[in-house]
Amino acid sequence: MSVARLPSGTAVDGATEAVTAFHRRLAHYRDLISPALLRCLPTGEPQRYLYEPIRSYFEPVGKGLRPALCIAACRAFGGTAERAMVSASALELLHTAFLIHDDIEDGSESRREQPTMHRRYGMPLALNAGDALQALGVRTLLGNLPTLGPLTTFQVLEEFDHLIIESLEGQALELGWIRDNRCDVTEADYLRMILKKTCWYSFIHPSRIGALLAGVAYDQLNRFNRFGYFAGAAFQIQDDLLNLVGDEQRYGKEIGGDLWEGKRTLILAHVFSSADTHERELIHRILSLSRAERSVREVQALSNLIRAHGSLEYARAVGHALALAASRAFEDAFRDAPESEDKQFVRDMVRFLVERDH
Amino acid sequence: MSVARLPSGTAVDGATEAVTAFHRRLAHYRDLISPALLRCLPTGEPQRYLYEPIRSYFEPVGKGLRPALCIAACRAFGGTAERAMVSASALELLHTAFLIHDDIEDGSESRREQPTMHRRYGMPLALNAGDALQALGVRTLLGNLPTLGPLTTFQVLEEFDHLIIESLEGQALELGWIRDNRCDVTEADYLRMILKKTCWYSFIHPSRIGALLAGVAYDQLNRFNRFGYFAGAAFQIQDDLLNLVGDEQRYGKEIGGDLWEGKRTLILAHVFSSADTHERELIHRILSLSRAERSVREVQALSNLIRAHGSLEYARAVGHALALAASRAFEDAFRDAPESEDKQFVRDMVRFLVERDH
Repeated sequence: MSVARLPSGTAVDGATEAVTAFHRRLAHYRDLISPALLRCLPTGEPQRYLYEPIRSYFEPVGKGLRPALCIAACRAFGGTAERAMVSASALELLHTAFLIHDDIEDGSESRREQPTMHRRYGMPLALNAGDALQALGVRTLLGNLPTLGPLTTFQVLEEFDHLIIESLEGQALELGWIRDNRCDVTEADYLRMILKKTCWYSFIHPSRIGALLAGVAYDQLNRFNRFGYFAGAAFQIQDDLLNLVGDEQRYGKEIGGDLWEGKRTLILAHVFSSADTHERELIHRILSLSRAERSVREVQALSNLIRAHGSLEYARAVGHALALAASRAFEDAFRDAPESEDKQFVRDMVRFLVERDH
Repeated sequence: MSVARLPSGTAVDGATEAVTAFHRRLAHYRDLISPALLRCLPTGEPQRYLYEPIRSYFEPVGKGLRPALCIAACRAFGGTAERAMVSASALELLHTAFLIHDDIEDGSESRREQPTMHRRYGMPLALNAGDALQALGVRTLLGNLPTLGPLTTFQVLEEFDHLIIESLEGQALELGWIRDNRCDVTEADYLRMILKKTCWYSFIHPSRIGALLAGVAYDQLNRFNRFGYFAGAAFQIQDDLLNLVGDEQRYGKEIGGDLWEGKRTLILAHVFSSADTHERELIHRILSLSRAERSVREVQALSNLIRAHGSLEYARAVGHALALAASRAFEDAFRDAPESEDKQFVRDMVRFLVERDH
């Protein structure tokens, strides 16, 4: 996919208004999901060493993007929020499991404007809490049975099965590339990795599950794959950009963390492909150090190369182009859904993907 | 439960012969399960960063105690090995997920006579591989649907749901006690913790699931809870003993690892309750150090206290008494099953629990 020649900002007429409407609506879905989410947490022992740390992670709750998309897609196709509530909660439980484990794997320091869970409760308890959240996601989905019946409950379980394994495969690629200090990661490699790591679980399956629960035929669900891929890729690239240039308090994570962690982003892939031999050796040497060995000066040198090669602008342009593609794919995927607040929310979400500052 | 006055060795008439028969039969179940287990692993990408590390963990495969118990229980009640194969495989996948994550949480160095997975592949990839194994366990169980139909498939999923959450709750207790340097852990606390951490997933649910798949009525399954609790507790106590006094090559893990890690075992609970004020302060001080800060001399001092208070003998006596209780509970739980090689295997397993050296 060559998108470099598209001008940045193509998708952004009236964007600020859309983003405001989007945030108002997102808060509405979050209010629906928050109590359901807390009901998924067992009230028995051990609270202190397991369920209290987990509960503290839902206060403040995250953006709730995935459950919101699931509920919105369900309603847009004529279903109810109630019907999607269990599956939407499971999506957020699983997302939280991923965040906690990612932070351990990456050695990240802050999340949601607070120290990461392993810094607050120690690595062992945080790792175990992530395992429990993954398991609670499955437990929650088994709760679909009385309402949805066996066929649909199994279909939702299979959607989850696919999204979990894809995400962990994508995560394996990202972690493996860091471990082996791979400096030959291309744009195509990166896009394949984030399809796995981000798009399936954050956009494709939340849409598919919402539509399925509204009664959209199972063989019609693949229409959401294109939409979710473009949207997820735009989202991840914006996330990578915010990590480098964002406002720490708005973003909630440390700025530049990806450089400290050596994450293979589109930005790094662009630098790899633009750098001359001397620069490539420098990048390889800096990235070969562990996070602890890397100094501020070295992270600054990486940052300078990124700016010198226009890699931020490049990534921003790709992100905008993907958001534009997501907009078009959205209109196609949701063509049968009548206009509604829920459908408009998903439409606005695409603008949020590249306009957001956190 | 007070079992201290029972003489050790009560349960062990003809034990060596039983143990030999047990191992022969265990190898038979392992031969059944190994190919099924490898078929659960995806053959697509990423092999290098995900499925190869996992596959390497099944070569050499572990004892395979849990799948063997599941298959044996199924056959003993008139079912077939084929019918239990999927669920038995899922038990081993999940067990492996637990081992990999436990080793990260505990900072353990060796497992199955090899370096632990996080030492071989790095912590981030190992953590992620454990997540994938937990997810593959669920994927595998969804494969029950065509053979077992929706009702039984759901019942097995619910058995798994219970065993996963119980195990992680037990693990949280163990990890939390270490983190907070709790030196007031009693024998009752310990037994409650290992019921959660070990007994459900290693003995109770494998038996329940095997019997369920053979057609034993769902409301009859609680009879396996007593058997599995006694057996699991005897097994865990023997594991704790082997960790202190075993032969490293036979046991496959480092000897004394539990002391380095500060694990709250029955042995430590006994020392806590027997120590005088001065000794209690010494224990508290040694255990307050991190693994890295603890010296050989300090671990030796702990070990000396354990020997001085007869805590090994005490734990051995409790283990034997529990194995005896497990024997009796076995005869009750399996009373409707006609005598067979499979039933005999479970009977012999109880002897193995306290006779084993690895």
